Amino acid sequence: MPKKIKLGILGGGGDSLIGIVHRIAAFMNDNYEIVGGVFNPDKNVSIEFAKHIDIPTNRIYATVEELVAAENELPEEERMQVVSILTPNFLHFPMAKTLLENGFNVICEKPMTTSYEEAKEIAALQEKGGAVFALTHTYTGYPMVRQMREMIRSGAIGDIHKVDVQYYQGWINPLIHDEASRKATWRLDPEKSGISCCVGDIGVHAFNLVEYTTGLEIKEVLSDFNFLYDDNVMDVDANILVRLDKHVKGIVRSSQIATAEENNIVLSIYGKEGGLKWEQENPNYLYLLKEGQPMQVLKPGHGYNSQFSLEGTKVPPGHPEGLFDAMANIYLGVAKAVRGETYHDGAFPTVTDGLRGMNFIEATVESNAKGNVWVALDSQQ
Amino acid sequence: MPKKIKLGILGGGGDSLIGIVHRIAAFMNDNYEIVGGVFNPDKNVSIEFAKHIDIPTNRIYATVEELVAAENELPEEERMQVVSILTPNFLHFPMAKTLLENGFNVICEKPMTTSYEEAKEIAALQEKGGAVFALTHTYTGYPMVRQMREMIRSGAIGDIHKVDVQYYQGWINPLIHDEASRKATWRLDPEKSGISCCVGDIGVHAFNLVEYTTGLEIKEVLSDFNFLYDDNVMDVDANILVRLDKHVKGIVRSSQIATAEENNIVLSIYGKEGGLKWEQENPNYLYLLKEGQPMQVLKPGHGYNSQFSLEGTKVPPGHPEGLFDAMANIYLGVAKAVRGETYHDGAFPTVTDGLRGMNFIEATVESNAKGNVWVALDSQQ
Amino acid sequence: MPKKIKLGILGGGGDSLIGIVHRIAAFMNDNYEIVGGVFNPDKNVSIEFAKHIDIPTNRIYATVEELVAAENELPEEERMQVVSILTPNFLHFPMAKTLLENGFNVICEKPMTTSYEEAKEIAALQEKGGAVFALTHTYTGYPMVRQMREMIRSGAIGDIHKVDVQYYQGWINPLIHDEASRKATWRLDPEKSGISCCVGDIGVHAFNLVEYTTGLEIKEVLSDFNFLYDDNVMDVDANILVRLDKHVKGIVRSSQIATAEENNIVLSIYGKEGGLKWEQENPNYLYLLKEGQPMQVLKPGHGYNSQFSLEGTKVPPGHPEGLFDAMANIYLGVAKAVRGETYHDGAFPTVTDGLRGMNFIEATVESNAKGNVWVALDSQQ
Amino acid sequence: MPKKIKLGILGGGGDSLIGIVHRIAAFMNDNYEIVGGVFNPDKNVSIEFAKHIDIPTNRIYATVEELVAAENELPEEERMQVVSILTPNFLHFPMAKTLLENGFNVICEKPMTTSYEEAKEIAALQEKGGAVFALTHTYTGYPMVRQMREMIRSGAIGDIHKVDVQYYQGWINPLIHDEASRKATWRLDPEKSGISCCVGDIGVHAFNLVEYTTGLEIKEVLSDFNFLYDDNVMDVDANILVRLDKHVKGIVRSSQIATAEENNIVLSIYGKEGGLKWEQENPNYLYLLKEGQPMQVLKPGHGYNSQFSLEGTKVPPGHPEGLFDAMANIYLGVAKAVRGETYHDGAFPTVTDGLRGMNFIEATVESNAKGNVWVALDSQQ
Repeated sequence: MPKKIKLGILGGGGDSLIGIVHRIAAFMNDNYEIVGGVFNPDKNVSIEFAKHIDIPTNRIYATVEELVAAENELPEEERMQVVSILTPNFLHFPMAKTLLENGFNVICEKPMTTSYEEAKEIAALQEKGGAVFALTHTYTGYPMVRQMREMIRSGAIGDIHKVDVQYYQGWINPLIHDEASRKATWRLDPEKSGISCCVGDIGVHAFNLVEYTTGLEIKEVLSDFNFLYDDNVMDVDANILVRLDKHVKGIVRSSQIATAEENNIVLSIYGKEGGLKWEQENPNYLYLLKEGQPMQVLKPGHGYNSQFSLEGTKVPPGHPEGLFDAMANIYLGVAKAVRGETYHDGAFPTVTDGLRGMNFIEATVESNAKGNVWVALDSQQ
Repeated sequence: MPKKIKLGILGGGGDSLIGIVHRIAAFMNDNYEIVGGVFNPDKNVSIEFAKHIDIPTNRIYATVEELVAAENELPEEERMQVVSILTPNFLHFPMAKTLLENGFNVICEKPMTTSYEEAKEIAALQEKGGAVFALTHTYTGYPMVRQMREMIRSGAIGDIHKVDVQYYQGWINPLIHDEASRKATWRLDPEKSGISCCVGDIGVHAFNLVEYTTGLEIKEVLSDFNFLYDDNVMDVDANILVRLDKHVKGIVRSSQIATAEENNIVLSIYGKEGGLKWEQENPNYLYLLKEGQPMQVLKPGHGYNSQFSLEGTKVPPGHPEGLFDAMANIYLGVAKAVRGETYHDGAFPTVTDGLRGMNFIEATVESNAKGNVWVALDSQQ
Repeated sequence: MPKKIKLGILGGGGDSLIGIVHRIAAFMNDNYEIVGGVFNPDKNVSIEFAKHIDIPTNRIYATVEELVAAENELPEEERMQVVSILTPNFLHFPMAKTLLENGFNVICEKPMTTSYEEAKEIAALQEKGGAVFALTHTYTGYPMVRQMREMIRSGAIGDIHKVDVQYYQGWINPLIHDEASRKATWRLDPEKSGISCCVGDIGVHAFNLVEYTTGLEIKEVLSDFNFLYDDNVMDVDANILVRLDKHVKGIVRSSQIATAEENNIVLSIYGKEGGLKWEQENPNYLYLLKEGQPMQVLKPGHGYNSQFSLEGTKVPPGHPEGLFDAMANIYLGVAKAVRGETYHDGAFPTVTDGLRGMNFIEATVESNAKGNVWVALDSQQ
Repeated sequence: MPKKIKLGILGGGGDSLIGIVHRIAAFMNDNYEIVGGVFNPDKNVSIEFAKHIDIPTNRIYATVEELVAAENELPEEERMQVVSILTPNFLHFPMAKTLLENGFNVICEKPMTTSYEEAKEIAALQEKGGAVFALTHTYTGYPMVRQMREMIRSGAIGDIHKVDVQYYQGWINPLIHDEASRKATWRLDPEKSGISCCVGDIGVHAFNLVEYTTGLEIKEVLSDFNFLYDDNVMDVDANILVRLDKHVKGIVRSSQIATAEENNIVLSIYGKEGGLKWEQENPNYLYLLKEGQPMQVLKPGHGYNSQFSLEGTKVPPGHPEGLFDAMANIYLGVAKAVRGETYHDGAFPTVTDGLRGMNFIEATVESNAKGNVWVALDSQQ
């Protein structure tokens, strides 16, 4: 049995939801031990939190710089092997940069950076240093999303000609209609939230799911944003026409004003030989449509799934897994990569996914700002 | 009990599916008797068909002109009161024109005409003569679509800020990838099918559902068509950005290459106070989303539905009705109008729906042709 | 094109729901013309109703005896060929008897009779005379129920070893808890409703669906009834253990106190090679479960269905049909039988279904009365 | 922040699924640290496993007796506070007995014992010593099962009059039809599996869900088992009529030959004021039926849920949780109990659930053996 990987965590202390998700995910497959980190800007708070989650406090640091310096002093076999970045968005870039410059493997929450320029810098650093870098587009960790990817690759639906992805939430609706509350919402404040609200937060997940499952690049976008109020500069709804290739077109739909929707992602991919559909709120079903045949409903854990999908399932068919398990699968992939084991190329989203995501966000903002015109994305292939 | 309405039918003979649908719909509520018509260009065939469906043959005519002339000779109480047009699309306009010019009430299959210009002519004739004119956007006849309309009107979801409608089919997929078969498909031949395939045939239904249920007008469209092959000039897939008002935006998605989809219409409308969703393939469910409340699933026939919806249900809750029943409800509305009874203003789609539909089709074609730019629709309000 | 079949109707006048269902069903496939009948005990009311539904009044009769006498005076080619019995339950037996004794083909609403003894008499008369006799277990008319039957016959799920059928309604709940209203409910009055309420009205449909789809006979029953109140003698809920063969067992569950359920029939059949499931409220789906394979969802109108199923579908896939269409398929089968055409042996439930149903009802009542013991049914095979 | 609870584990080593489930569950809410145990009968294997899951090896013991002796030597603040029993079924009783006799709190996998007599002994020991004892009927940990319990308690559906629960699996189907394989299946060997296969393994979960959610006791059972083959003595399918009170009846259906079903639990409870339904394979939905009202679909994490349900949800609405999370909620409840905090009386199934479960299993076996007669259960109220 391999030794556990030494994991450091930046952020995610206290009641942080994302902290819980990452710790559970790291734990689930017995691959990681949390050895320290910077849970909070206040080191005392960090130390208290370390006690709470029952880890030694001697490797709790005040800053990422202190962490890097101290860890690099340790013998290699004791040193943190992976550091997860769960801090507020604007800190992702500087922290990832520091870690990569010092040779640490990184698991980074989405978004990778706050701009495409920064993303390119991270990508260059990662390429130069060769560290493992995983971006937590969590939904790619679901077994049936992975099965979708594998089936498309193996030709189950033939050449793709249409993609349609939706990511609908309604949570901004109760906030946006009142002037005071919309001004007090940090997601609607470009100082805190960056150049995009809806696309930056959720549209980019939808975009990533299309590229992750199809293996195709989105080449051009034409977006129409809705701000709802003239005094609001942040998109809360975005319909984005996309072109993947001359004859492959599609639509990326995202909204935070789809009132009372929770986390309603629907991914539909159609090809010459069939279609595949998946929904995040019922993640254990994958629908295969073939002309003139009954629709098939695939579920995790069955032998008809690909090996890659099966590796992401811990329980027998009929026992539902959920979001934690999806994130755990990303941690599982990183563990394999860090240990130098063979791992599937879809085992975790990479720096390239982060690069493309930032490119997508900026391109959609530009398209909308210019009056809904086509804006090209760079190719990474 | 009122006397039955005398109904004539143009087209729909033989094994015509649409003929069956209209006859059953006319029969369902005991309001109509079919007295004659022109079932086929060959009068002998028409007569044979009249015998088959067991109606007298003395009012079977060779042409619509002959019908109009002969019927107008009859005493008013014997004359055809409504004539249904079920012929190929290009005949809708001349037949509707002839009928309206001669004072007949009309039920017309969709599309009303082959151009917006013709549609305006029909609208003017109808306005001038005051005849009842119903366009069979059949899906508006479903009780839960009607309930959706009534709930939106009564404020159940508050001011609308987002619309999303999908009409996905896959039937062209097996035809389009082979050059010979795509050239042999009449829907892909502009001579036979008009200026648009996908939008003209199904996108316009999706458009109509939005306007029918919301009571709002779509003011501008920006469309992106997919033709899949360079030698194909007819759209087989269309993503259409729409603006209903400055702050109300949405998307109309239609496809005939959504491989293996059958007749998958999904209509989602979101407002400040909630959302409503409906799906054609399970038409007896209407989903109401309210923030912080459990989703509600409404079904036909319950007392909580509006009177208008309830009038369209013939059986107790739990006994499914389907497409024939939706069409029957349109015939029911026409019957009330013809008899001068009070009827709901949503009881059947009118000449205005036809006018707007043709405007929409032409605007989307123009938008796509000009490189995906915004094109305005005329307002009819 | 064949001539229309002359149809007489007993009962079903006025706003009668069942009258509407039968008339629409008779009309749907262009096989029948209604020529007369006894719509109401009051002949004047019958005549008015004939005018309302626009049929001649000269063959409206005061009684079934008058009908039989007069029709038999007519030349054979004018005579009623089929008579449908839609009257209150206690009249089914005497009317069916009179009709069969006089050589008329019969479509009879369920229940066929009010006792097993009467049922045997009807069966004997039918066997002796050879008339077509259809019992309207309407749910057997759904295309996907028919497909289920055909798939089981063709071995799609192998030898059956388990059956489970549910028919849940909740309509008696609001009536039964108040003493006055439960005493005023005719279904709870044995004088009017016979020896069983829940099993007699709906449990027998569930029983019939098992035998219809599996082709197996239920041999023994052990039932447990619920009456809810000591002063109520009619079952409102029944759980019935069934044995089809030594090693094939199952359960028939029916309830009228499954609060707020509408018409929730669920039929599940499991065999060595797979399982099949169907639900009445979404009748256009049939679920096929095979070990180690994705679940398949079959829908009407596709070429993968049996010819028998396909004959019961009038519209392309994706256009829902419902209850009227199921009944129409029973009328379609009767039309073929009356015309001497080849017809599928599942085309309509027969006198044997009626016989077995009454046997089942009486056996379950006996089982419960004797303290939940096994009671055998007669075999008709 | 409270100190972590010291947890010992018996069994669950290697690739044991149940071991994984318990460790993840213990970890999820940061309440436990695993300090030792007996993972395997071979102490060396246990020690290796301890290294694998990265816990100290100094408290790995050879036997439960050794564990009890050594731990009781430790100062109270270091001693194991809870010991989880994940060993093969026949070891549950002796281990639980030893632990209870020595004052340890216990989390015990189901079944609690192999006989009702043993169960009574455990119950008496637990009552005498007052230790916390949790039985892992995992499904009671789902937030929507807990919500169902709370809603029933608060009168949401009024007095109950009908219960129906299903637990269908198909996994024995491929094994039982071949004589050699059915003889080689340990579940079908009474020596290894006890007196019942289907009821003992899964029917008892269904039984528990009824009592857990309704708060009512099942008083009598009448069961019909299916063994499929004469040389098989273990039930693989069981239909069990149940009586909860004179006027409350129901059915517990369980099967391991419901071919190709996975883990299909459906729980339906009907009362005078409404009905509630829940399905294990889509555990994040709870369906509320009220007469004359739209069906409501409740989901976890919303404010309309009870506090008890909300405590069992870690993520915002729309982010699915699954089986691990259900088990984690049971561990959460035990943590509160062990710490002497206030906890909900449904926070974990207790020794009484175990007692009743064994009583139920034996009663159903007896009922079937005696020819399907009513057998009473003892009351624990």
